[in-house]
Amino acid sequence: MDNLNLLKSLAIKNEKKIVFLIIDGLGGATEPSSSKTELDLSQHPNLDKIAKESLCGLAIPVDYGITPGSGPGHLALFGYDPVKYLIGRGVLEVLGLGMKMTPNDLAFRGNFATISNGVVIDRRAGRIPTEETKRLIQKIQQSIKEIDGVEVLLMPGKEHRFAGVFRNPKLKEEISENDPHKEGNKPHKILPLNNDEDTIFTASIVEKFINKVSEILKDEPKANYILLRGFSKYPNVPKMQEIFKLNPVAIAVYPMYKGLAQLVGMEIIEGCETISDEIEKLKELFNKPYDFYYIHIKDADKLGEDGNFEGKIKKIEEIDKIIPEILSLQPDVLVITGDHSTPAVLKGHSWHPVPVAIWSKNPPTPKNNVPRFTEEEFSKGILGTLYSNKILPLAMAYSGKLDKYGA
Amino acid sequence: MDNLNLLKSLAIKNEKKIVFLIIDGLGGATEPSSSKTELDLSQHPNLDKIAKESLCGLAIPVDYGITPGSGPGHLALFGYDPVKYLIGRGVLEVLGLGMKMTPNDLAFRGNFATISNGVVIDRRAGRIPTEETKRLIQKIQQSIKEIDGVEVLLMPGKEHRFAGVFRNPKLKEEISENDPHKEGNKPHKILPLNNDEDTIFTASIVEKFINKVSEILKDEPKANYILLRGFSKYPNVPKMQEIFKLNPVAIAVYPMYKGLAQLVGMEIIEGCETISDEIEKLKELFNKPYDFYYIHIKDADKLGEDGNFEGKIKKIEEIDKIIPEILSLQPDVLVITGDHSTPAVLKGHSWHPVPVAIWSKNPPTPKNNVPRFTEEEFSKGILGTLYSNKILPLAMAYSGKLDKYGA
Repeated sequence: MDNLNLLKSLAIKNEKKIVFLIIDGLGGATEPSSSKTELDLSQHPNLDKIAKESLCGLAIPVDYGITPGSGPGHLALFGYDPVKYLIGRGVLEVLGLGMKMTPNDLAFRGNFATISNGVVIDRRAGRIPTEETKRLIQKIQQSIKEIDGVEVLLMPGKEHRFAGVFRNPKLKEEISENDPHKEGNKPHKILPLNNDEDTIFTASIVEKFINKVSEILKDEPKANYILLRGFSKYPNVPKMQEIFKLNPVAIAVYPMYKGLAQLVGMEIIEGCETISDEIEKLKELFNKPYDFYYIHIKDADKLGEDGNFEGKIKKIEEIDKIIPEILSLQPDVLVITGDHSTPAVLKGHSWHPVPVAIWSKNPPTPKNNVPRFTEEEFSKGILGTLYSNKILPLAMAYSGKLDKYGA
Repeated sequence: MDNLNLLKSLAIKNEKKIVFLIIDGLGGATEPSSSKTELDLSQHPNLDKIAKESLCGLAIPVDYGITPGSGPGHLALFGYDPVKYLIGRGVLEVLGLGMKMTPNDLAFRGNFATISNGVVIDRRAGRIPTEETKRLIQKIQQSIKEIDGVEVLLMPGKEHRFAGVFRNPKLKEEISENDPHKEGNKPHKILPLNNDEDTIFTASIVEKFINKVSEILKDEPKANYILLRGFSKYPNVPKMQEIFKLNPVAIAVYPMYKGLAQLVGMEIIEGCETISDEIEKLKELFNKPYDFYYIHIKDADKLGEDGNFEGKIKKIEEIDKIIPEILSLQPDVLVITGDHSTPAVLKGHSWHPVPVAIWSKNPPTPKNNVPRFTEEEFSKGILGTLYSNKILPLAMAYSGKLDKYGA
């Protein structure tokens, strides 16, 4: 019996409400001149108060030394093993552009490129502007709606990027990519990577699609070819309703996080543009019969990615102000953590463990004597270091949602 | 190679003696008015002295958030994966009533019930007194000793409860139960849950048994029917002798713990009624060629289950007094922990990690600077948070019972 089946066999439905406040990129790293992290240097009295009253520790999203993407980081928070359940790059791109996927979809991401005499001379078509990409995608979509019974759905991205899905239950993801990765090379053919009939069919459809698009784009000055990558099927992740008997809802601004939440069965709330919008929605929804509220706060991650150390400090101070508003709703369990760390000094996601606080109304959690919400103080918390997918079972235990195992 | 096979390949027999003092329900939780746990508030100078000289940490019996029954809690302490090796409810009930099981046994637990016009009108037969149940079990056992070559052995429990085994090598546990779970319903038929010939045979034997018992009980005013549940085979757990090359012995008062110890191959010492009896037995046995002594202390768990916070504090103070007596025997390694936590504030087993101290004569363990034997102090111990089935390998390592792995 694997861990998810164990949890499934023990999950109990009740009315207690769990809130997961996910501050994307929350954890940081020490800036060399001060030897302090973003959390060390920011003033966040409300987070500090939570720390004193919570189980505190450091969470490892995937494993020691592994830097998680947003997909694995979130799957772990939602209680899944992020190595067992992998979300393909194509799927993540498609979700990030706000497309709704079905289980029949093969997702991919694409670039416009420049080809000349059969050789790729620019893999990004001179980074054509986003508006150009919108025009070209519309042009392609108008002439290609399906190929041999396979529906084709496209969505423009930023600059030369786009994404899309092929929709048909027969499609398989075991096909090669056409991107030659180096300019001056011919594009590769899309090949089936096994002898399965459906895989061979899939490769032929994608090859036909590329050829049709080349024909449509042949007179474009720069964007006269496409390179496709990251072919991935809709992942077969069991729903949170099925495993944890939860009725979950997601409040997020960005499409990718709504898409990730939808994959695990959450209801998606649309229409939020700011953190205030998100808190207002949470208040509205708190009387509804949901028992798991996922709130995603993006901004700390973006500033970390930009290497904006000061900006991330200020953003944490801003986020700190929403904590009393969430507590005023009297959740039974409140978890505050991130899907991964994004230290400004590294300008990107990192493998650093993420501070996690689990606050519970009744029963209360043991006392930590952790005085501040920082990486260093949390390393001394009673929770120690744990894998992120253990957070949800703890939140369920504190809200009476897990039965005893064995007699 | 799984973890148990790794340990098996490395286990070394020597004369060093390991003592596992298992204080059932040892861990607690904070009582809201004081924000202190049972261990925080009790005076236990001997446990505190052990803490200062031991490897200290917090042990998770099954997994984060999972509340263990006594079966999984003990299997983990004995070094086994408690999710891989599950002990069925029937087996635990039978062991708890002091019956000895063989590998040919299918165990179950039962209720006397009241049936009228084919419908169960009282699933507990008016909670008839224990003495009545003894009389009825004797009456049934006198007329039914075997059915089609399957031996039938019964044992009365408290009030309307009883347990028993069907004994025959062909028996399987994949059969349904007859308890309709709601009064006013007909009892279910016992059905085979697969097409295996032996499973079909098992279901027919159990069905025949129920019909024969109904006939015997038909003139009883209340207890005129039986409901059977928790069918489970003797679990196939490899013995501690085979895996760890230990010669283990169990000292316990209650039958269930002796039964659990017997499952993993321990010799069982009978005749203890009190903690003092247990310590006297330990002294007697310390010159015998055992190298693993399991001592089970029940009382802290019972007071926790009763919600008796003060009582559990006092009981810990009482248990504290036996520590010098155990140390005077000069064990090579002494482990003090519990099979799970039983916080008085929760009136039951819980998922809270259990304090664990590993004391070693030679080599001594690293110093912790842990001043007191409490949950909070142990969370800062050098051992950190670990799974309970890692305690036995550590005890073996400190007593020179594990060889180097690889060259």
